[in-house]
Amino acid sequence: MSTGPARATAAHAEAGPDSDERRDRALLTRVAEPGDETVGRWLEDYGPAEIVRRLRGGPPPPGTSARRWEGLRLRAHGVRPGADLAAASTRGVRFVCPGDPDWPVQLDDLGPCRPYGLWVRGAPSLRFWALRSVAVVGARACTDYGVHVAAALGAGLAARGWTVVSGAAYGVDGAAHRGALGAGGATVGVLACGVDVAYPPGHSDLIRRLGECGLLVAELPPGSHPTRGRFVLRNRVIAALTRGTVVVEAEQRSGSLVTARRARDLSRVVMGVPGPVTSGLSTGVHRLLQHDAAAVVTDADEVIEMVGAIGELAPEQEVPVLPRDLLPPEAARVLEALPARAAVTVPQLAAASATPTDRVLVRLHELRALGFVGSAGDRWWLLAPVPRASEGCGRPSPQPQ
Amino acid sequence: MSTGPARATAAHAEAGPDSDERRDRALLTRVAEPGDETVGRWLEDYGPAEIVRRLRGGPPPPGTSARRWEGLRLRAHGVRPGADLAAASTRGVRFVCPGDPDWPVQLDDLGPCRPYGLWVRGAPSLRFWALRSVAVVGARACTDYGVHVAAALGAGLAARGWTVVSGAAYGVDGAAHRGALGAGGATVGVLACGVDVAYPPGHSDLIRRLGECGLLVAELPPGSHPTRGRFVLRNRVIAALTRGTVVVEAEQRSGSLVTARRARDLSRVVMGVPGPVTSGLSTGVHRLLQHDAAAVVTDADEVIEMVGAIGELAPEQEVPVLPRDLLPPEAARVLEALPARAAVTVPQLAAASATPTDRVLVRLHELRALGFVGSAGDRWWLLAPVPRASEGCGRPSPQPQ
Repeated sequence: MSTGPARATAAHAEAGPDSDERRDRALLTRVAEPGDETVGRWLEDYGPAEIVRRLRGGPPPPGTSARRWEGLRLRAHGVRPGADLAAASTRGVRFVCPGDPDWPVQLDDLGPCRPYGLWVRGAPSLRFWALRSVAVVGARACTDYGVHVAAALGAGLAARGWTVVSGAAYGVDGAAHRGALGAGGATVGVLACGVDVAYPPGHSDLIRRLGECGLLVAELPPGSHPTRGRFVLRNRVIAALTRGTVVVEAEQRSGSLVTARRARDLSRVVMGVPGPVTSGLSTGVHRLLQHDAAAVVTDADEVIEMVGAIGELAPEQEVPVLPRDLLPPEAARVLEALPARAAVTVPQLAAASATPTDRVLVRLHELRALGFVGSAGDRWWLLAPVPRASEGCGRPSPQPQ
Repeated sequence: MSTGPARATAAHAEAGPDSDERRDRALLTRVAEPGDETVGRWLEDYGPAEIVRRLRGGPPPPGTSARRWEGLRLRAHGVRPGADLAAASTRGVRFVCPGDPDWPVQLDDLGPCRPYGLWVRGAPSLRFWALRSVAVVGARACTDYGVHVAAALGAGLAARGWTVVSGAAYGVDGAAHRGALGAGGATVGVLACGVDVAYPPGHSDLIRRLGECGLLVAELPPGSHPTRGRFVLRNRVIAALTRGTVVVEAEQRSGSLVTARRARDLSRVVMGVPGPVTSGLSTGVHRLLQHDAAAVVTDADEVIEMVGAIGELAPEQEVPVLPRDLLPPEAARVLEALPARAAVTVPQLAAASATPTDRVLVRLHELRALGFVGSAGDRWWLLAPVPRASEGCGRPSPQPQ
């Protein structure tokens, strides 16, 4: 079964918004800065088609300054979103829009600051992976202690079936991603540039691996470069995508504190890993613990206890459950191949389901995020049965990819 | 003016409980273990004289087992508290009882577990010093980090006019005392043995210095040796004496956590200094922060903010204020010598008040604890005037020493 990016994009086009809306939203990612609240309100009031029609020659929405409108129109001039989407698709990049089966609905909590769409690289379902995800963020110029703690958290969260979301930056971000990758787990890099731009340059290998083994996500279209403002705006996506944010090391004016406070404002769980009070890189975290009601966490288990308590105890209440018969065919096949009362390895499952091992692993991570399977080390097993759609799940029916 | 220990004891005998009660309570410190709740209730119900009369040959209080009563009577046999008190006095040790002007009334919060009395070595007023005091406790086998943090806290608290209370143990305790002594500040060692017993032996110099420049306090009479149980019971005195307890480093089953939880049960402020999560000596502190609602503190200013917020902002509300005309003569003389609108040094004050410099310093610390004076570095100044007793203070009139 081929699940190449081109096919994935085509599948989205069938299931989500129509291709016109997809093109219009792709255009907006090139014309407006991420999270522009005014543009977000226009989208709510007029819809993408009308906004783009006006940018192509219509009147500005009421109250828009001529200068601002002219700026946007100039940027829109010559943008060819259809060609953008096609070019991205050939390079393994898809564009996920609100309404798409793979759209992480928790981003809607951002209201008018919701992304116009997300450019995504990597095979797994962003929506599924983000269901049980935690952000691990912190200082770029962190200490060995920060690297150690972030890597241990990344590995521990990944090994327990949680997706590690971070910003692919130097320091804590990179260590968290590497910890998750090293544990064979799920990790998402949310970039402040295009998903085809290796920034920071020293992380080009890491970013490539994130695209191959995990997911790369960006609001900005391919080819875009980061700016200071874009880093700050990117942080709101990390905060909104995840159930909670852990700050590992941070100075008093760290961008990771911005992420943490955004997470708090979005009613996500905010956590901090304490460190030596003798280190300037502990001050931001301790301030967060003292003044922002962040929780003290010291390892992955404690993080999961904070973000997953309800979900872990009663998954049917917290984790959005997908009816089994609405699973994508490949995931359904992997699930079907799992024996009723035994734990098996990925190679065993690959044989039983006639699916390549790397695809089996992607599907297992998705199935684990959905609460279908459990795992420890390299063994995977079936969890309690989940109702079929016909038995009434009360959820929408996403069918990504 | 002579303020030697013998004179101090005599002064107490005049001002506090009569010499019979003093002897009876001194006897009880030799007969019963510290904090024995049953004995405490007998004291409440019968008073010290009746308890001692019965121990000398009367009937046991109702409900007392014959075996227990016989044990106490055997221990009481041959105890000569009058001779004990006289011998202690000649060695610079006084016995402070409930009702004495120097009794720290906050110990009454311990109810029936209140000490029968306290054996005290050192010239300063225990009551005055304990008014603005913080306990700094932690692991004996602490790391360099713990030593550094405890010493910095001890010095910082002392330099800001706060008394540092600890247990004179190896590790965090010793570092906190040394920090305070090094800053020329006030520090109290609460021992689980007699104030004349150097335990731990490696701290004999430190304990000697605490008796000379600070205060040594014990529930057990001179000559007593510590036991495991006595350390635990000692901790409740540290918790009750102070406005709050800071734990610097502690393993999961540390005695300092016992102190912290006693402090919490007594509605004192409980604080913890975070440390690296990679250290086993951080686990107890982090557990305290997570499960016992302890506050994160990272330096002396933050500790003072926690324990002294109300008092610092509105001393007339929080700090028990002693009317100026009820001050001991030497303290009154030092206070009188302070100029109205200038900061002066200790030698200047010694000259102006015709008092030896070491006595001036002792009195200044007391006056600072009472809110009469402020200090920074080696300069001291007068704070806003405090009402005289005739203007209505509503407080009892302690006149220690």
